[in-house]
Formats: sequence, C-alpha cells, structure tokens
Amino acid sequence: MNEFARAREAAIGAARQARKTYRDGLITPTAGIAPGMTQANLIALPREWAYDFLLYAQRNPKACPVLDVSDAGSPSTLLAQGADLRTDLPLYRIWRDGKMIDEVSDATQAWAEHDDMVAFLIGCSFTFETALQEAGIEVRHIADGCNVPMYRTHRACRPAGRLHGEMVVSMRPIPPDRVAEASAISARYPSVHGAPVHIGEPALLGIQDLSRPDFGDAVRIEPGEVPVFWACGVTPQAAVAASGVPFAITHAPGHMFITDVPDSTYHV
Amino acid sequence: MNEFARAREAAIGAARQARKTYRDGLITPTAGIAPGMTQANLIALPREWAYDFLLYAQRNPKACPVLDVSDAGSPSTLLAQGADLRTDLPLYRIWRDGKMIDEVSDATQAWAEHDDMVAFLIGCSFTFETALQEAGIEVRHIADGCNVPMYRTHRACRPAGRLHGEMVVSMRPIPPDRVAEASAISARYPSVHGAPVHIGEPALLGIQDLSRPDFGDAVRIEPGEVPVFWACGVTPQAAVAASGVPFAITHAPGHMFITDVPDSTYHV
Repeated sequence: MNEFARAREAAIGAARQARKTYRDGLITPTAGIAPGMTQANLIALPREWAYDFLLYAQRNPKACPVLDVSDAGSPSTLLAQGADLRTDLPLYRIWRDGKMIDEVSDATQAWAEHDDMVAFLIGCSFTFETALQEAGIEVRHIADGCNVPMYRTHRACRPAGRLHGEMVVSMRPIPPDRVAEASAISARYPSVHGAPVHIGEPALLGIQDLSRPDFGDAVRIEPGEVPVFWACGVTPQAAVAASGVPFAITHAPGHMFITDVPDSTYHV
Repeated sequence: MNEFARAREAAIGAARQARKTYRDGLITPTAGIAPGMTQANLIALPREWAYDFLLYAQRNPKACPVLDVSDAGSPSTLLAQGADLRTDLPLYRIWRDGKMIDEVSDATQAWAEHDDMVAFLIGCSFTFETALQEAGIEVRHIADGCNVPMYRTHRACRPAGRLHGEMVVSMRPIPPDRVAEASAISARYPSVHGAPVHIGEPALLGIQDLSRPDFGDAVRIEPGEVPVFWACGVTPQAAVAASGVPFAITHAPGHMFITDVPDSTYHV
C-alpha cells in the first residue's frame, strides 16, 4: 500500500470511528472532525413528500445540493458503506406539522413510524473548510472550537409543490485581503454550496444581528473582517417549518453525517 | 443599451426566432443554431413517473443534469419566457411501453393524453461547443453541417425505482494535441455533461463501429484524431426503452430545445 492509499485508509478510518462514537451516543458538532471527508446534511421524509422535496432541491441547488438519496424504506447510503442513517449522526431533530418537537441522538424509533422513509443527503459547506485552511484562511468556528453560525434570511427559495421557505446561510468572517480567495476556493465545490451567495452587509439579507445566529454559535469577528455568507443545508429545515410538513427527521444544525467520500470528489 | 446588452438581446432574439420556426413546422438538428444560447434535452412523463425520473437524474448526474422541471400539467419553463414545450422543439418522439412509436413536429396532441405531464429539461453538450470553437477546436458535426453522432454504451446507469438503462454518449473526434484542452473546457460546464466520460478506444465502451452511430449522423474522423465521448442527454430515452415506460414524450436526438439562457450561466 503506498502513502496515498494509506492516507486515504486513515481518513476513512477517522470517518468510521466518528460515526461509531455518534452511534454510541456522543453528541457534538462535527466541524473539523475527520478532516478531508465530506460531511452532509440529512432530511428524511415519507415517500409521499419525496418528490416535492427532490424538486425543491433541484430548484434551489445552491442551498440544497443533493449528494445521495436512499431508496424508500432504506437507511443506507452509497456515501458510507455499512452506515445507518438512523443512528450514525450525533444529533437529530424530529419535526411534526412544521414544528421541531424533539432532539434525539438516535432516530431509530421515529424513523420506524413510516415504512417508506426516503433519506436525502445534502452537501455541507464544512466540505470546503479543509481547502480554506490549507490556503491559510482561518475558519473561525473551527479555530475557536464551536459550531458555525447560521441565519435565516429573507431571501425566498423557489417553491416546489407543497414546499416553500427562505434560504438559510452560514457565515464565516474573513479578512478583506482573503475574501476573493475564499470565494474562488469554495466556488470549486459547487456540490457543497459552492461560492458565497452574499459578501458584506448582513442587513441586505435580512439579518439584523450577527451576534444572534438562528442556529449554531456566534463567532468572534475581528475589526475589518468581512462577513461572508454561504447557502446552508439547514435550508430544508426552514422549508419544513414554513410549509408545515407533517413529519420529517433532520440532523441538528452543525451535527452532520460524516461520509467515506473525500472532499476532493466534489472538487471541479 | 451598451454593446453587451445589445449582444445579449441579439442572442435571445436568435433563440426566440429559432423556436418560432420550429413552432411553425421547421424540422432540423439544432447544433450550431443560436450560438452561445444553452440547448436542452427534453423528456416529459406523467406525474406518476416523475419521482423515479428525477431520482434517476440525481443518481446519474453526468448523463442527466437537470436544468429545469416544469410544474405538473404546465408546458412552460423558467429557461425561456413564453416558450411552449409542446411545440417549440423541431422534432419529438412519442413513446409507448418503451417503444418509440412516432416522430412528430408538434407534441400538443400527445401531451394532452395526460393532464399532469411533467417536463424535464436536461443539459446538452451543445452548450460547450461554442467554447470549444472559440478555443479553435473544430467541432466536426458543426463544421460538416450534420447531427452529432451518439452511441449506446454497455455502461449501466445507477437504477432508480422502476428506471434502469445504459448510458448514451456523444462523440467528437479531436486532434491529439487538443484533447486535454477539450476536456478542460468542457469540465467547466458540469451542468451540461461536463468533462468527457471516455477518451479513446470505443470498444471499451461497447461501441463496435464509430461509423454506425445509434442516433444522429456518422462524422468524418481524420487520421490520428481521437474519439472523445461525453455523456449524452439521450440517456433518458435509453431508460424509457429499457424500462418499458408506459408513456413518454422526448425530443428527437439532436433536435433540442433552445433556451434564452446564455451558455456562460453554466460555466463554473
């Protein structure tokens, strides 16, 4: 086995190990975990809602880039052999009639309420954070050991069937002389949200106060740093809420599914 | 109006004019028509088959990159305001139980058989041909004024629900010293098939004779030129045939829908 194959095995091993600790009950945000391995947002819906959601994702590809869709009734995915989507994320949210009614570390019981659940794995901006760091761009929430800040916006997604809602964004503060490079680097990963959707003035996105994110943690912003906003895979949860979807299971924001797929797979 | 706006207006005008001539009955392949405007493959299916197809497309994104999906029952698309997908392509194929039973220049009558037809517009490699030509790479079927050659392969797509089938490819012969550049240029257009799926030996794709394409026209291959294969938006028609889909309306290979969207929109 050469050094590349060894490094790859080690990275997949780290991903497997992380999934196992979550399956065993550990609850923690996943930013910075298993570096170089793609992380994904999860939303699982009964088959009766699957077409509307897949269409919503197709119509809003920056916010909802689909990496994989399970067969109805199957909690497996091509993105990680042997993984169980009901247990292998650190934290889940259970939704009824558009309201988040519970957070659980094991979704097996909720998942069993329908025998035709379809799981969608949606790209996550954590995927290009390794590339940002390799370029010497600090990713603040990783540096400070917290969850990424996420915000609801007033920018409407294109509706599909019964689904509508606003775009959710993640934010990273970037020094002015690195914003262009952070944009260019992330643009090379279109399957995991790609380039920023907004750079600068939060109010123009409908965000009143950066220190009060709707999801995740507020992060330190140094003087002169520019807030850079990327479309976020929590957007499906905003659609579940806005549209009053009868039943859904999602990841908890920042608590992602870690796959066995290297980030480089989504580099164009 | 500045020169860029004028050029854009002229290009959209050319696209509208082309759609009108097809609506009026002209039947012709669309390669080279309205240069710089994105062309798209069409497949329309009853709503009952729409999820399986959208999932098939998601699972086979190189062959079936989805540019837009109509609402059920609507023959309109965001990609060209005022266009009617039932009439504005030069030639359609009507499919029953997996068999192509008719070719028509107006699909209005067939479309009316179901009140919930969903139209899928799939990216087409014609979109990056303008970029190839701008780089001085001859696109043989345009230079020789014929349709692009397309071939069935023995490479299976990933199935979805009731749909399965083989990948179809288009082929362009390229001089050995331009193959890398043709690959790089097309790779920048992932929504319209992106980089080649195969370069060289046709037999390894299951293609026995380049001079006998399954769709379109054979093209001249000069000594030393390398056959370069791109995934093709006729792949959905192969799935319709292989899966015995009860009813579908598609474009005829090479007879595309011309949109009002500039190719540059799909450049990453």
